[in-house]
Amino acid sequence: MTEHWQLDPDRALPAEPATRDLARTIYQHGAALPLVSMHGHVDVGLFAANQSFGDPAELLITPDHYLVRMLVSQGYRHGQLGVPHRDGTGATEAVERDPRAIWRRFCENWHLFRGTPTRYWLEHELAEIFELPAPPSADNADALYDQLCATIQRDDFRPLALLDRMNVQVLATTDSALSDLGAHADLARTLGPGRIVPTFRPDSLVHIGHPAWAGEIDQLATVSGVDTGDYNGFLAALRNRRRAFIEAGARATDHGHLTADTTPLPAADAERIYRDALQGSVRPADAEAFAAHMLYQMAEMAAEDGLVMQLHPGVLRNHSSEIYRLHGPDQGFDIPVRVEFTHNLRPVLDRFGLSPQFRCILFTTDETVYSRELAPLAGAYPSIRLGAPWWFLDSPEQMRRFRESAVETAGFYNTSGFVDDTRAFASIPARHDLSRRIDAGYLAKLVAEGRLPMDEALDTMVDLAHRLALTAYAAPNN
Amino acid sequence: MTEHWQLDPDRALPAEPATRDLARTIYQHGAALPLVSMHGHVDVGLFAANQSFGDPAELLITPDHYLVRMLVSQGYRHGQLGVPHRDGTGATEAVERDPRAIWRRFCENWHLFRGTPTRYWLEHELAEIFELPAPPSADNADALYDQLCATIQRDDFRPLALLDRMNVQVLATTDSALSDLGAHADLARTLGPGRIVPTFRPDSLVHIGHPAWAGEIDQLATVSGVDTGDYNGFLAALRNRRRAFIEAGARATDHGHLTADTTPLPAADAERIYRDALQGSVRPADAEAFAAHMLYQMAEMAAEDGLVMQLHPGVLRNHSSEIYRLHGPDQGFDIPVRVEFTHNLRPVLDRFGLSPQFRCILFTTDETVYSRELAPLAGAYPSIRLGAPWWFLDSPEQMRRFRESAVETAGFYNTSGFVDDTRAFASIPARHDLSRRIDAGYLAKLVAEGRLPMDEALDTMVDLAHRLALTAYAAPNN
Amino acid sequence: MTEHWQLDPDRALPAEPATRDLARTIYQHGAALPLVSMHGHVDVGLFAANQSFGDPAELLITPDHYLVRMLVSQGYRHGQLGVPHRDGTGATEAVERDPRAIWRRFCENWHLFRGTPTRYWLEHELAEIFELPAPPSADNADALYDQLCATIQRDDFRPLALLDRMNVQVLATTDSALSDLGAHADLARTLGPGRIVPTFRPDSLVHIGHPAWAGEIDQLATVSGVDTGDYNGFLAALRNRRRAFIEAGARATDHGHLTADTTPLPAADAERIYRDALQGSVRPADAEAFAAHMLYQMAEMAAEDGLVMQLHPGVLRNHSSEIYRLHGPDQGFDIPVRVEFTHNLRPVLDRFGLSPQFRCILFTTDETVYSRELAPLAGAYPSIRLGAPWWFLDSPEQMRRFRESAVETAGFYNTSGFVDDTRAFASIPARHDLSRRIDAGYLAKLVAEGRLPMDEALDTMVDLAHRLALTAYAAPNN
Repeated sequence: MTEHWQLDPDRALPAEPATRDLARTIYQHGAALPLVSMHGHVDVGLFAANQSFGDPAELLITPDHYLVRMLVSQGYRHGQLGVPHRDGTGATEAVERDPRAIWRRFCENWHLFRGTPTRYWLEHELAEIFELPAPPSADNADALYDQLCATIQRDDFRPLALLDRMNVQVLATTDSALSDLGAHADLARTLGPGRIVPTFRPDSLVHIGHPAWAGEIDQLATVSGVDTGDYNGFLAALRNRRRAFIEAGARATDHGHLTADTTPLPAADAERIYRDALQGSVRPADAEAFAAHMLYQMAEMAAEDGLVMQLHPGVLRNHSSEIYRLHGPDQGFDIPVRVEFTHNLRPVLDRFGLSPQFRCILFTTDETVYSRELAPLAGAYPSIRLGAPWWFLDSPEQMRRFRESAVETAGFYNTSGFVDDTRAFASIPARHDLSRRIDAGYLAKLVAEGRLPMDEALDTMVDLAHRLALTAYAAPNN
Repeated sequence: MTEHWQLDPDRALPAEPATRDLARTIYQHGAALPLVSMHGHVDVGLFAANQSFGDPAELLITPDHYLVRMLVSQGYRHGQLGVPHRDGTGATEAVERDPRAIWRRFCENWHLFRGTPTRYWLEHELAEIFELPAPPSADNADALYDQLCATIQRDDFRPLALLDRMNVQVLATTDSALSDLGAHADLARTLGPGRIVPTFRPDSLVHIGHPAWAGEIDQLATVSGVDTGDYNGFLAALRNRRRAFIEAGARATDHGHLTADTTPLPAADAERIYRDALQGSVRPADAEAFAAHMLYQMAEMAAEDGLVMQLHPGVLRNHSSEIYRLHGPDQGFDIPVRVEFTHNLRPVLDRFGLSPQFRCILFTTDETVYSRELAPLAGAYPSIRLGAPWWFLDSPEQMRRFRESAVETAGFYNTSGFVDDTRAFASIPARHDLSRRIDAGYLAKLVAEGRLPMDEALDTMVDLAHRLALTAYAAPNN
Repeated sequence: MTEHWQLDPDRALPAEPATRDLARTIYQHGAALPLVSMHGHVDVGLFAANQSFGDPAELLITPDHYLVRMLVSQGYRHGQLGVPHRDGTGATEAVERDPRAIWRRFCENWHLFRGTPTRYWLEHELAEIFELPAPPSADNADALYDQLCATIQRDDFRPLALLDRMNVQVLATTDSALSDLGAHADLARTLGPGRIVPTFRPDSLVHIGHPAWAGEIDQLATVSGVDTGDYNGFLAALRNRRRAFIEAGARATDHGHLTADTTPLPAADAERIYRDALQGSVRPADAEAFAAHMLYQMAEMAAEDGLVMQLHPGVLRNHSSEIYRLHGPDQGFDIPVRVEFTHNLRPVLDRFGLSPQFRCILFTTDETVYSRELAPLAGAYPSIRLGAPWWFLDSPEQMRRFRESAVETAGFYNTSGFVDDTRAFASIPARHDLSRRIDAGYLAKLVAEGRLPMDEALDTMVDLAHRLALTAYAAPNN
């Protein structure tokens, strides 16, 4: 194949010629800056093993819930896209084993992704990273498949080689609070400290109504060496693990809750609920109250140890119980709900919001809170930064609306810089690139409308593309 | 009058010249496609009778609640616009009987409609269908009135002639679940099957707290021939009516509820509440719970018989009890409220959301749910399609925002195509035309920003203007 | 200094050249119209005293909570910006006493305001009113300070001189319901009636749970000469004060509540709660219910006496109790919450919504209600006008979105015209100018997209910039 798939160099920049000229200049000022990827979900094991990726379906399709859910929404079953059944479901439906068939199914349905960020990211990956000659289609599916197979077997396409090729300066993974952090220790030895860092995610330990909770608490005792037999031991074990994460280079914690409620409980109530949970008899309302209480505790610990607290409430996980039963979590059936921050964060902000050591980054999938709640909070409390538009909002129109909704009240400097939040390793450069283009377009609009001089726009571009993320996620006690 | 009122051929297309050129090409690719009008409220009797329209006020003003409410909001009374009082109100306020006076009142207030879709539609109707020479004003009100009177007396302006002139391929009316469907049978004989089809609307049967409910249930027994004396008979009668609608060509059902709650009740509770209602003693909380329960039942029936379920919650009807008392429903005083789908639809989607036969189209007048709830739901469940922006949202800015909010997550192919939702027959082409222009503008933006190639934009235009509605509202078991 | 700081004459107009040309023409049609400032918070004492402003920090920084909160959000303390501690706090933290140091701190952080309306307003004030030679920076801070000091000592920069220079036709202040209105009487003698008028703000009298309430009620008795010892006396005293405000030229009342609830209480309940409150033992739920009840009473009085009722719910005041304790209210820590109008206003609108004498202007900091609730309400009830985007929404992007969200349903003529809502006297022209530019841009878009002819756009511009505010706030019984 000697053909060449050339992406539009001005893609995702504003269409109006004068504004586009400005945007191009601003974009180019930031385009080559190293990637700072402080919130993502690539498995650290990928880098520790540093093996070649498997086949194209395993690399690009089956594990990408953005992509799978779109095909499912048009009538495909998860199994047809290679998503396996969980053990013990008794499901008899076939699961496609042929990666070429999965790839072909995807190529035939390329039109379904028109206008979506999935399409933008894939075009970038396929054209620029994997150097395919043309967009996928029914006709070229097999040829593309063969070419992709050959490419991903090359040594310079192994994960660590790609990390360099993709110009990633620092990458944060998300890790169970129970992780022994061994892979991170190995990588720190190989790559030097601070290139790949862990993030502390304690959700499974604070949602005490979950059937697996008691087992997790036992593991927490083991890994921390702290007795978790009562509530105070539990808190001590969490403090211990946070410290271990800090020593392994962690910059932040990550908290996914259904609501942003941070109301603390009286200690006696927390102790009682913890005791009930250990005995397997926690009431749902108590479990909810305990989750809120633990957000408050996490804020208190953050104010002590300096880890940045990332909070992203408002997604109802596993909306379809059938999909969850058959295939488990993260299959595209997590659906956002309305979210509230002003009342819910008040307990934490009233107590720690002005503390010099406390830092908190807020994410949402409910865009209505940007102008109403998040920008006003971030534009007042020194501890609050406004996270990048995330998950369903990580797209051109949404990123534009984010700037148009948040900057006027919060300014640029109370935002945290871009986070890619991805499980799809190869999509990281595409995501950062798209964000830089949209930010360049927004800055160009300010310049074109006489609202910002060009020299300040250029300076702001570097902040948005690079500096702000480094500052917002600076190591504790820096 | 030899003057000519020429509309801007590029109206409602983007202003930026290069994008406009693209948009014009895309629009022209879809502009002449036949109209597929699958959700509307034109009375089927209009076509069955096929009489000339009365006077201009009766044709264009008095029955158009968009138009009437705007004049009322500026101090006119409904009566001044010809809206009659209901029987027995004892109202002494005069009702204008002179259609020319009503028309003049409208013309003098043409400026009030600046920037509204009512204005866009009327310009299209008046200039292109009725070929008036100039926009309405105090000066030309009488001359326009006379010309309109002459036009609407012509045989080629009778309803069925207009249906051809307006290039309507298929038109769905909305019909009481109690309708004998006789007019539809007549029209199927005259026009052939599938040109004008009914839609099953059972709202009055499931809102059991309404004073007229018991009478409706008696009629249901009569028309269905099924004893509605208990809850199971009620369900059987509804199934019977749905079958009759399917045989008369229906594609869909239509459900207007205050909330989207679909929580089913235990059968015994449903039976008890139904019994209470028959005895005239239903509690408000029970009536609400029953309405939610019946949405679940309707979904179950839809999964059986394949009628598309259309749901549009979130409007508080008859906000002013005085207007309702004097003039009845649909007088411009229905006001939207916040709406929630993620939690509320979970019972139905958890049970039927993956069923091959179940199809559901969701409408909203609360635009905040597009990106937060509706696009994620439609982008995951194969049964869900996202309805067009509807009622208050059927306007240029809102249609743009709909695309900008929904497409990135749901794609184009989980949307249902345009529906005009109108009682104003002559406005149908204007509404479809505006939608095509806005969609062309959105597609042109994607092309101009390098996010979609032109050939794909042209193909998508045909889908949005024509194919998607045919697919989304395909006949059951097709 | 002979340098000159020249603002872009086309700032805040659309970037696309043809649309900008239209916008410039439309803007110029309205740019020189006198300012009608019907909702503001400049202290009437400023005009009554008519003394020179103090130093630049006192003029521009310390009292401007928009500006202070942004610096606080980046780590400064209120004290460093000159905000004093309240008496009796025991705070030991230093408060900056050197206005030059405060000014320098601001200049060094000019970049933090990139993209914010604060920046737009300050550029306008500093360049056009105070004729500074260049934007603030660390380098020129001292020189600018000296120049500002010299300027504000000039007689032609005293408040009343500025009022003329700024082309203010009428300015409404906001005044405690307890005010003796003496300053207003003095100014009416000096300036003639109707140039500076009071606004009746009774919040402190209707929020009966506040510790200071009983004292206020005593003062109410004194100033009104009506015994406030029971609920009926309280209402009579309020009527008395409203009458006094009308006689002093007031056009409107102003109501800030956490919610828009207007549910009236049975008279006996209102009497009991009032009695409880006088005895210092009111329950929080009763206090809330009483506040809602009093909004209903205020609407009833408005329907009697014709004062325009302004309502702006939805802001949680003093979110940080530490900031409130140290520095008091209005320090940038008021944070919006979600707001609801459709249900909450129903009691008032059902009773008074169609009354010829009742007029109500609604404000929000929750932009989601514009299209969902406020535009439909204003587009139906003759008594309702939709207030300008306010507080956090008084910015270029938000003002655009306001038009894009509200006009299609409410039209232009159910909006109230611009209000500047400012405590910062010198920012008034900048705020009106920005509003006119954004409105011109919106009108230009309608023209460019063939949705409005140019002559109608020009006429609408005058309405938006001038006429609508005069009409919406016309004196009672006009």
